Amino acid sequence: MSDFTGKDKDYIFRQLLDYKSFTYTYLLADPDTKEAVLIDPVYELVDRDLNLVKSLGLNLKFAINTHVHADHVTGTGEIKKKLPSCKSVITDISGASADIKTDEGSKVEFGKFALEVLKTPGHTNGCCTYVWREKGMAFTGDAVLIRGCGRTDFQEGSAATLYDSVHSKIFSLPPNFLLYPAHDYTGQTVTTVAEEKSMNPRLSKSKEAFIEIMTSLNLPYPKQIDRALPANLVCGVFDTE
Amino acid sequence: MSDFTGKDKDYIFRQLLDYKSFTYTYLLADPDTKEAVLIDPVYELVDRDLNLVKSLGLNLKFAINTHVHADHVTGTGEIKKKLPSCKSVITDISGASADIKTDEGSKVEFGKFALEVLKTPGHTNGCCTYVWREKGMAFTGDAVLIRGCGRTDFQEGSAATLYDSVHSKIFSLPPNFLLYPAHDYTGQTVTTVAEEKSMNPRLSKSKEAFIEIMTSLNLPYPKQIDRALPANLVCGVFDTE
Repeated sequence: MSDFTGKDKDYIFRQLLDYKSFTYTYLLADPDTKEAVLIDPVYELVDRDLNLVKSLGLNLKFAINTHVHADHVTGTGEIKKKLPSCKSVITDISGASADIKTDEGSKVEFGKFALEVLKTPGHTNGCCTYVWREKGMAFTGDAVLIRGCGRTDFQEGSAATLYDSVHSKIFSLPPNFLLYPAHDYTGQTVTTVAEEKSMNPRLSKSKEAFIEIMTSLNLPYPKQIDRALPANLVCGVFDTE
Repeated sequence: MSDFTGKDKDYIFRQLLDYKSFTYTYLLADPDTKEAVLIDPVYELVDRDLNLVKSLGLNLKFAINTHVHADHVTGTGEIKKKLPSCKSVITDISGASADIKTDEGSKVEFGKFALEVLKTPGHTNGCCTYVWREKGMAFTGDAVLIRGCGRTDFQEGSAATLYDSVHSKIFSLPPNFLLYPAHDYTGQTVTTVAEEKSMNPRLSKSKEAFIEIMTSLNLPYPKQIDRALPANLVCGVFDTE
């Protein structure tokens, strides 16, 4: 099984993408115990993701969301239908239903590894970042995007809160930690704490300048929000037709 | 500078994608010497790629193609216009013009690292795979795709030759080596030698079965081929209008 791992041999990591909503889904696993987690699976791509899990001989323990998404329907409900032993995970404060509700400092364990929960509200109240310290990675959801960040103009959004979350939590991680976002619209796949701290055109500014930028964006209404929000509050187990 | 690296700290690696042609471009660099290479850059995305190179403080030494692409125009010519010190690289047998022509066993050196050239013809005569042994990675172009392979029905293609190339070269690498293809159409980003050896629906078969599969595909004429082929034979320096 360790043949599916890469150079380090003690872990499996796969980044997957949805060409429709530009969402990244992440598969993380311990090849020794076979325990795996999926972060931010997309409803339409559950079959692809579960085929990959199965083909690698993995046992999917948790299907995790970084937050209640407004731009796509989560795959967690569909995954639980197909794999009843898999548990859904989201932060308590998100208000969404899930098997496991996390809070600041919660650990999501799979095999010899654990993801640590950092609450990073601002895009939504329930947003969190999952930190995989052993591997120097953090999954930032929509809090930090590559040279960008999630919008803060709907769904409990607050630019001031987002700025504080990012600076006190994500930008306080070691500078060489890799940041894996929930989306990218330019074909980039990863960044680092140091890069975003120095080069993010919004978050590298002062808090006042950041709030000014975020309140001046005038973004269009999210295309899938009316379908996605109610579905995602119940883990995507919803009559989506 | 090493803050842009990730856990290992001694290298920089970025996978980039083109949402139009589903092409992956790869940036590899030595953060100590700042020397970098780009593999399979796309014409329309040269500005994105060079902005990334510049923002990371890197010096782009080589712009490399795995082969003469038929589905997109290479960015190497445009890169050389903007960065005259950058050298283009392709295999001698490809028939394309380039500053550096490689052959079996050639080394493409950047900083403390080197990519090793394995000739892997079959999709085209000039196809090669670049192996980054220190990091357990290989860049397979269109020879091996994730659960697939490049077509062999045009541009000097030969299913028998491709089968031999893949089995004697790529599948003979260590089983946990990560394989990074030139394309994926399903949102997957990486695979391993072990995975494709056992699960590739074409290449895991016998040679006879593989040839039968490849001759029965009846694929449509590539959309961009009439524009891409003549341009790519001269490194994309071509009147593309």
